[in-house]
This record gives sequence, structure tokens and C-alpha cells, in this order.
Amino acid sequence: MQQAVEDALGRMLGQDPGPALTVAGRTDAGVHARGQVAHADVPLAAWDRMALAALRRLAGLLAPDVRVRAIAPVPPGFDARFSALSRRYSYRVCDDPAALDPLRRTDTLWYPRSLDLDKMNEAARGCLGEHDFAAFCRRREAATTVRALLDLHWERPEPGIAQARVVADAFCHNMVRALAGALLAVGDGSRPPAWPAEVLAARVRDSAVRVAPPHPLCLEEVRYPDADGLAARALLTRRLRPELPPGDPL
Amino acid sequence: MQQAVEDALGRMLGQDPGPALTVAGRTDAGVHARGQVAHADVPLAAWDRMALAALRRLAGLLAPDVRVRAIAPVPPGFDARFSALSRRYSYRVCDDPAALDPLRRTDTLWYPRSLDLDKMNEAARGCLGEHDFAAFCRRREAATTVRALLDLHWERPEPGIAQARVVADAFCHNMVRALAGALLAVGDGSRPPAWPAEVLAARVRDSAVRVAPPHPLCLEEVRYPDADGLAARALLTRRLRPELPPGDPL
Repeated sequence: MQQAVEDALGRMLGQDPGPALTVAGRTDAGVHARGQVAHADVPLAAWDRMALAALRRLAGLLAPDVRVRAIAPVPPGFDARFSALSRRYSYRVCDDPAALDPLRRTDTLWYPRSLDLDKMNEAARGCLGEHDFAAFCRRREAATTVRALLDLHWERPEPGIAQARVVADAFCHNMVRALAGALLAVGDGSRPPAWPAEVLAARVRDSAVRVAPPHPLCLEEVRYPDADGLAARALLTRRLRPELPPGDPL
Repeated sequence: MQQAVEDALGRMLGQDPGPALTVAGRTDAGVHARGQVAHADVPLAAWDRMALAALRRLAGLLAPDVRVRAIAPVPPGFDARFSALSRRYSYRVCDDPAALDPLRRTDTLWYPRSLDLDKMNEAARGCLGEHDFAAFCRRREAATTVRALLDLHWERPEPGIAQARVVADAFCHNMVRALAGALLAVGDGSRPPAWPAEVLAARVRDSAVRVAPPHPLCLEEVRYPDADGLAARALLTRRLRPELPPGDPL
């Protein structure tokens, strides 16, 4: 996907290869990213030439599964990855056969048992805050798994659909999917609401946690500070995560 | 799709082959049918045994692109096809790159020019009522192309999205897609609003009408009379369309 956008930008700008993109969230394979943000450095003169037509031009160059919905110059110091304050994901599940929509099968999990959202939200509250999320992450050498989980709750946006809203400063590999898997086990009654917090406290990957499938997960929004705070935020992120190689997920 | 449901019903009932389905709308290939209705004759004892669990059972047996959302006994005289009073379709188009959603690419047409919905609705009004829709249909031997177009209008359910609501007693092959194609040409300014009604009045297939792609089209709803009117409606439909072979689209 990143490559497709870089190629399209390159064709638009007459550059080969196209400019390198830096993306805000490097999602697991199979995860959607409706709210992805990326930046690239392009010559100012080229931007001025193409600014007005850029969105329609890109729509014509990209395949229907990759779309650019907005494009704009950013203040100095903006870094799509390191300036980000938080990422918001959604996880969409259908637990009622009467609500099954074949047209949403690519972003909705069919769950064959009814889910108790009150229990799931009780369990979710026990995971909020800054913790070492090692229990819910795929381990990577020398990378911290401490994250601040700012929001995690489930609601029913329509009958038969359960949707999680998950916000953190950043996420580790598999983290949302592992949390979703643990909460689904609470929702269907196979685990008590206290269980996910117990798993979290143990700080080791627990094989009893099933990593939920990737396709119902979507990166919905990335938040940034205003212009004044951008460069400062990028510096702070780099200082807090000195171990981060450029390809590490946030 | 029909075959998949027949097979799943058969497995559920322990019948091989499964009971034959009669469907309300036989859509063109590639068209969705979120609101499809079908009937089948099954032994009463078998139904009584499976009634409660039927929906979840079918959800487990069917692939994610075919779903049964409700199942119930019907009054005597009900015929999913011949008792129907009307069919409602939707046609979903995106004409603003800022509104493009890759997750909706399977049911939304990307249209590279901005659409003027006022002009499209003006053109649509000229096609309402009972007409011979031969100009907008794929011809079939000995089949009437007279249909009553009850509603046809476009609205913006969200910014950047144009969606048609199309209701008729029944439709011919290609009819909604050909009407959509003619109206899109009005919407982008390449034809005047009077054009679709002129094409209609000529009553011959017009090669200037582009048949719009199938994937943004969805059968949303089929309406039926109440129990008393069902058998009467089926008789009337058969009398009005004596030429209809069992496989002809409605």
C-alpha cells in the first residue's frame, strides 16, 4: 500500500522512484487503515503546480483499495510518525445472524455467540492506563512494550454489531487484536471480566489469549498537536523510544 | 448464491438435494442483494424441529458472502416472486476523492467527475410512471418490457456520496444500470436533463446509453401485500405476464 502511494506520487511528480512516505501507523497485515496519515518531502515548485488537481489525479492513478482522501502542506517539524499524539482503532464484530451483512464481510468479524458488552467494558477498564503490554504483544528484541491505553470500550452502533474504540499513544504488534481476543472471550462468557487485567499484570505472552483476526480492525484516526507542538512532540517521542528502528510499529 | 442457500438448507434438513428456492429478484451478475427474499417448501415437522436454531445454523453453514438474516413461515399463497408488489434498489456512487472509502469499493462506483443531483433528479422525474422500458433493457424474445417505475431519485446520504433510490413493480434485465448510466451522463453535464426521457420515448435500445457497472447496485427491499392479498397478487402477476418463463427476471 505504501509502495502504491509512493509510485503514484512519483508518477504525478515525474520522479522515479517516487518520494518516500513516512506513515503514522504500521498496521499488521490484513488490517485496514481508513485514517492513516503519511508524509513525504516534495519540491515546493512541484507541489504548487499540482496542488489543486492532486486528489483527483491520485484517485485516477491508484487502485480502488488504496485511496488518498486529503493532501496538504504541513508545518515545519511535522513527522507523520513521531509527531503523533495518539492512534485510534476500531474493531467491528457481528454477533447476531439477523444483522449479518455480506457487504461488510471484509471489515466485520462474524462471532457465533452473543456478546455481553457490559462484561467486556468492565474487563476493558481493568486494562486502561500506562502498562507494560508484553502479555498482549508479539515480542521484539530491545523494544519497549510500555504503552498508554487511553480508551478501550465497546458499543453497539447498530443492532447486532459490537464495535470497540481503542485509543493509545501507540501500539505494539498484535496488541489491539490480542486485547480484542481476550475481551471477546469475556463477552461470550468463557472467561470472567477480571481475566484480561490478570493476563496484563503477568507481563508475559499468554497462549490462552487468542489473537483476533485482522480484517475487522481499522486504524481510524491519528491525532497531532497544533503547529507549535509538532517538533517538540517528535523530539519527545524519539527521546522516550531511543531503541526505535525506523521500521518499528507505533 | 441461490445454490449455496439450497445446499445449506438441505444440510440443515437432512435433504439431498436441498429444497428449491424461489427468489423475488433475479439480479444481473455482480449485483448485490442485501434485501433479497426467497421461499422454499419444507416439511412442517422439519421446520418445527429447527425453527429456533435455524438462523445461527445457516450462518455456520454459509460462506461470508451469502447470508440469511431472517427465516419464518409464510401464509398459504405466498410466492416470493409472484406475490411481490415492488422491488427497491440502491445505486451508490462517490464523486469526491475526499469521500473515497476503500472498504466500500465493492459496493460503490468511483465517478471521476462531480455530479449535479438536481439535474439528475429532473431527468429522473421524466422517466417515472408506467412505460415500455425497451430503451433501457436487454431485449428478450416474447417478454414484455412494460414496467411501472414508482420512484427514482438521487440524494447525498453523506458528503461526496450520491445514492439513487429506485422502485418499480418489477425490473427488466439491465434496467436500473442503464437508467443509472443515463442519469450519470446528465449529472456530469455531458447530456441535458431532457435526454433520458427522450431515449425512453424512442422505445429502442440506444447505444449512447452506457450501462453502469453492476457492483454499486443492490436489491434493498421487496414489498408484499398483507396475508389476504398474497394469493390474489400472485394470480394477478401471472395473468399480467403470461409469457413469463420461470427463470425470467422480475
